[in-house]
Amino acid sequence: MINKNLNKLSEQYLFSEIGKIIKSRQNVINLSVGDVKLPLPSAVVEAGKKAAEELKYKQTFRGYPPETGYDFFKRAVISYYNCRGTIIDESEVFASDGIKSDMSLFLNVIEQGKVLLPSPCYPAYIDANILRGNELEFYDGFPPKAPDIIIICSPDNPTGRAMSRIELTEWVAYARKNNSLILYDAAYEAFITNDAPRSIYEIDGARECAVEFCSLSKTAGFTGVRCGYTIVPKECGLNAAWRRVKSCLSNGVSYITQRMAECALTEALSETMSNVKYYADNAAIMAEALSGAEFSGGQNSPYIWLKCGDSYKEFYKLLDEFGLGVTPGIGFGQGGEGYVRINAFCTRDDAVTAAERLKQYSSLR
Amino acid sequence: MINKNLNKLSEQYLFSEIGKIIKSRQNVINLSVGDVKLPLPSAVVEAGKKAAEELKYKQTFRGYPPETGYDFFKRAVISYYNCRGTIIDESEVFASDGIKSDMSLFLNVIEQGKVLLPSPCYPAYIDANILRGNELEFYDGFPPKAPDIIIICSPDNPTGRAMSRIELTEWVAYARKNNSLILYDAAYEAFITNDAPRSIYEIDGARECAVEFCSLSKTAGFTGVRCGYTIVPKECGLNAAWRRVKSCLSNGVSYITQRMAECALTEALSETMSNVKYYADNAAIMAEALSGAEFSGGQNSPYIWLKCGDSYKEFYKLLDEFGLGVTPGIGFGQGGEGYVRINAFCTRDDAVTAAERLKQYSSLR
Repeated sequence: MINKNLNKLSEQYLFSEIGKIIKSRQNVINLSVGDVKLPLPSAVVEAGKKAAEELKYKQTFRGYPPETGYDFFKRAVISYYNCRGTIIDESEVFASDGIKSDMSLFLNVIEQGKVLLPSPCYPAYIDANILRGNELEFYDGFPPKAPDIIIICSPDNPTGRAMSRIELTEWVAYARKNNSLILYDAAYEAFITNDAPRSIYEIDGARECAVEFCSLSKTAGFTGVRCGYTIVPKECGLNAAWRRVKSCLSNGVSYITQRMAECALTEALSETMSNVKYYADNAAIMAEALSGAEFSGGQNSPYIWLKCGDSYKEFYKLLDEFGLGVTPGIGFGQGGEGYVRINAFCTRDDAVTAAERLKQYSSLR
Repeated sequence: MINKNLNKLSEQYLFSEIGKIIKSRQNVINLSVGDVKLPLPSAVVEAGKKAAEELKYKQTFRGYPPETGYDFFKRAVISYYNCRGTIIDESEVFASDGIKSDMSLFLNVIEQGKVLLPSPCYPAYIDANILRGNELEFYDGFPPKAPDIIIICSPDNPTGRAMSRIELTEWVAYARKNNSLILYDAAYEAFITNDAPRSIYEIDGARECAVEFCSLSKTAGFTGVRCGYTIVPKECGLNAAWRRVKSCLSNGVSYITQRMAECALTEALSETMSNVKYYADNAAIMAEALSGAEFSGGQNSPYIWLKCGDSYKEFYKLLDEFGLGVTPGIGFGQGGEGYVRINAFCTRDDAVTAAERLKQYSSLR
């Protein structure tokens, strides 16, 4: 009776497993699961409290949210894109509770087929595609035979690389030529400070072939509040189908949550972005300590992807000898072997201490 | 590229479509989409505001929620079951944002196969199973050839019938004999006042063959807050698989939401239940006005399922001649033709006015 595809999944979800091991140790700085540490801006909390208060009175009570999100939320998302010169229509914005769930839901819109995934990659992509019955192929550059779906994450998790405008332009051209759909994970776009695109729609032609998933988890500290959004342009031909799938397989996003998200993307946007900068600075501090070592990320990204040798061995070494909890690269697939991922979602004090330890670790190699 | 199963779905999701037609009319009492009208109990709102406030400070900030729900939430659900003498273990409770999304997510745990659905039935069941690629069969009693999955909703949407202890015992025996899995939708259990089971686990043997889905939407007025739970007993053999699927395809439920739900099921439980009674009384008032007409529900349920003739014709008649927005039975599948569904999620004033109009409608037939 159990879905046979479940047997193809690794037994535990990576982050749950690693989290348990790290928690079992004392005095460890946890740089593994990318969970935010800074509290929410006051204005965002007040927006949530005000929305909750409205539910107390008959006159202002709200029931079912619109399936695709409240207009006020969509307008906030649109203004957030407009700041960067990207134009999105209200009908193209869909509220979600995060990327993991919405990307897996989105797979329902597309016929089963061949999916091209980065290697290494965020494990939830693999799981969702296995459960959907898709055929997986891992890439390093353009494959000769075109896939149906291409998953791109930029700035990338786990490697911390932000795709350049030229690279992304090539991917869009490749997808259009081959009639592939790009599922673009922009979870870390707010960390980009150079001229890399923050949205795939900065690339001409992307509206014809790409769906963009984004989340306030890392941008606005919403890992516990749960809000994200998916952009499905009219030109990609899937907007109506997604609307239909969304309305029959999901319940919409809480009113309180959407009001908090609206505030984070508008009134509290500068505070939101200064929190992003706090983590970006953490990454820079740790990256500096690793100068001389081979790594990617550390800028335009909250992640550092450090070359180190056997990834589980180095994970345990960093954990037990240096008091640092990181994520073994192998957890992101075979392509991640030989690396560990270090994330910068920690306090400044922890980043500074971790930098010292990383320097020591790195100098001993 | 588009999932071919999408072509098998009806073009619009029933409730969106009907909602638009009703909204286009003036001065209509909307008894169609079952959305709650009473505001939330003060204590529930205060619990939400307190939880939001905690997110403002470093010391009390919370990031990612546990994938299966917070322990405090699970304990609240368990106590809610315990009140009725049903014992559930913490490891068997999974927080969700509602039944529609969690039941469709749950289908990932089970191999594609034959699904037995009630006729008429809640359209989201049909859509989710079509998208999953399952083969649908509609039942009226036990089919000769056993299905892989059996969906039961009790008290039923749309017919308003609460399954008796004897009927449900027969279904459990049938499922166990045939190695079928029952997906039990208990969304309206709080409306039961007679001795019908409020949980399928009141039936011996159900823990071996049934998963129960429940929601606070109708019980606690949470259609806008979004919180539900799914019970997966250890004995059914799917607990670990569901835990795995849940962790890779979903993000967990907002901390604020779970605190509000905890309050609704514990501290504010009597107020929660008095709101349920308010709607149940609405149903009774309308049912009384229909005495002499042929209908089910109206007790142990917020729904009245009224036999009336051509369901779209009567929908428009009720809408345009009597100012009542109902749901045409055909929207719940072929088995619903000849009926309309009337829901009691309205104000008392509207219920009383609707009762007068229904009496008039009924007397003219």
